[in-house]
Amino acid sequence: MGIDVGGTKVLGVVAHHDGTVVASLRTTVVHDEGSRPGEALVAHVVEMASALSAEVGIPATSLPLGVGMPGMVSHDGRMLYAPNFQSASDAPIAEMLRATQRVDLRYLGNDADCAAVCEHRVGAGRGVHDLVMVTLGTGIGGGIILDDRLVRGAHGAAGEFGHMVVDIDGPDCPCGARGCWERFASGRAIERMANEAQAQGHLLDFPLREGASELSGEDVTMAARAGSKEARAILDEVAWWLARGIANLVGILDPALVVLGGGLSDVAASMLDTLRAELPGLLEGGTLHPNVALEVAHHGEAAGALGAALLAGGCA
Amino acid sequence: MGIDVGGTKVLGVVAHHDGTVVASLRTTVVHDEGSRPGEALVAHVVEMASALSAEVGIPATSLPLGVGMPGMVSHDGRMLYAPNFQSASDAPIAEMLRATQRVDLRYLGNDADCAAVCEHRVGAGRGVHDLVMVTLGTGIGGGIILDDRLVRGAHGAAGEFGHMVVDIDGPDCPCGARGCWERFASGRAIERMANEAQAQGHLLDFPLREGASELSGEDVTMAARAGSKEARAILDEVAWWLARGIANLVGILDPALVVLGGGLSDVAASMLDTLRAELPGLLEGGTLHPNVALEVAHHGEAAGALGAALLAGGCA
Repeated sequence: MGIDVGGTKVLGVVAHHDGTVVASLRTTVVHDEGSRPGEALVAHVVEMASALSAEVGIPATSLPLGVGMPGMVSHDGRMLYAPNFQSASDAPIAEMLRATQRVDLRYLGNDADCAAVCEHRVGAGRGVHDLVMVTLGTGIGGGIILDDRLVRGAHGAAGEFGHMVVDIDGPDCPCGARGCWERFASGRAIERMANEAQAQGHLLDFPLREGASELSGEDVTMAARAGSKEARAILDEVAWWLARGIANLVGILDPALVVLGGGLSDVAASMLDTLRAELPGLLEGGTLHPNVALEVAHHGEAAGALGAALLAGGCA
Repeated sequence: MGIDVGGTKVLGVVAHHDGTVVASLRTTVVHDEGSRPGEALVAHVVEMASALSAEVGIPATSLPLGVGMPGMVSHDGRMLYAPNFQSASDAPIAEMLRATQRVDLRYLGNDADCAAVCEHRVGAGRGVHDLVMVTLGTGIGGGIILDDRLVRGAHGAAGEFGHMVVDIDGPDCPCGARGCWERFASGRAIERMANEAQAQGHLLDFPLREGASELSGEDVTMAARAGSKEARAILDEVAWWLARGIANLVGILDPALVVLGGGLSDVAASMLDTLRAELPGLLEGGTLHPNVALEVAHHGEAAGALGAALLAGGCA
């Protein structure tokens, strides 16, 4: 069983060792800032585990559980820092989950790390030894597989690609820095650019949804699909920034493959041609630089939960 | 025996397995652009091997040889791209060296990778499992040790930190991009900032060396040591940029330690307090981010040659 807790949703799966999903559920995260640190997150995991358990007719305590979380997770299962789940920052999640005695916790780690394991084991990276996973959602998450092994770093915090600074004078980031990569290449980046464009008199052909005060990333991708050149131009700019950050990562890690996944996997798919065209020109050495393949995740936003399940089952 | 071929100098050592150096030599690189690709580099290695061999009284063919080179080196010993040794780009160096039958080549790789191995095995990183090596010279080189193993990447090109873009609107880089990290934090960066400062009427108290048309990085560090506040301000700015790039690397790789080495190891040492003060504030999560230690290389600019020797001897 794998459960992926994000800033806005919880995804859970029960899967066989080969990655076949036998049950999956999705719920919305309720943030309860008044609770003890980590309590809301732990409650979500236990509820999801119990619902999945009922779905497959096996007690939750008999299903090895892996959990992916949106932040840096220490090797002993403490949430070190969770920008999009602040109420869980600095909480000993593994200890709290075990104390419930309602789950059989085997793995707890970063959500994008789980997604990387999933794509490496049963997805776009099958058979590839060295890959970088970039998950696109509200922000950017990352996972690194080198020599067929997940890289967690000295403290479990490796793969935090989103806050790599690429434009020292760029927009402020909630992390405290300026010009972090995810300011330019994420769901929030699309929103920011779209609203800036609208403020400048562009994208006016695309009306706001009822009750909404701002354009959302989804509005832009829908407009682009419907043929709006202005919306397409925004996605092209995001694609360029995405390529720029990927080029940085390729210079550092030299993977054979970069997999694009997360909630915006579909958007990534629509950018793939642009990305493949831009990337080689951004690498040090240009055509002399070794090739790197770019693919979209096979398991989309489910990769985190499935990877967590595979890690729990000892398959990765 | 280890030989480190740089863009301007060749360093060679003969060492015991424990890192004790029994002989070392240094020569200047002569670039011969008219020769066959790689020929000048191969000639430098063979000459240095022969000189070291004479020094210790053991035939070169009986001394396992490791070679570090300033560029991306494929797993089969081809120089993929060498920005500071263009005449060797795309040359099959390992094959050419073996064809001379004058050396016993056991390892050929990137110079900063060799330095990382040296510091991990017998230097500042002894006992540390995950470290990042940053070599400061004309540009910036890099090496990555994860889980006690050197990370070479899918094609041997990992650890190219210098061309990580940190300022999208920054100064042009010979690599074709703009705002690469090494434009702000390297020997050439110090020179650029110093000459810009002088053009603006600063640093005038520090005269140019006879015959020199521009300030060198060494001029600036000497001026700073002699008490020039303007020179110190330049080094402080370089230190800030160094910290910024290191913060990016820490977010990606989460090492326990970052080792600063290369030809500018002394300059790095003079910046260490500033770096240690700046770094925590630049990390995602700030004080919630796991600590990372910062140290100066124990083997300075000799780390590349010594690491190459250790790799050749099968000690790393």
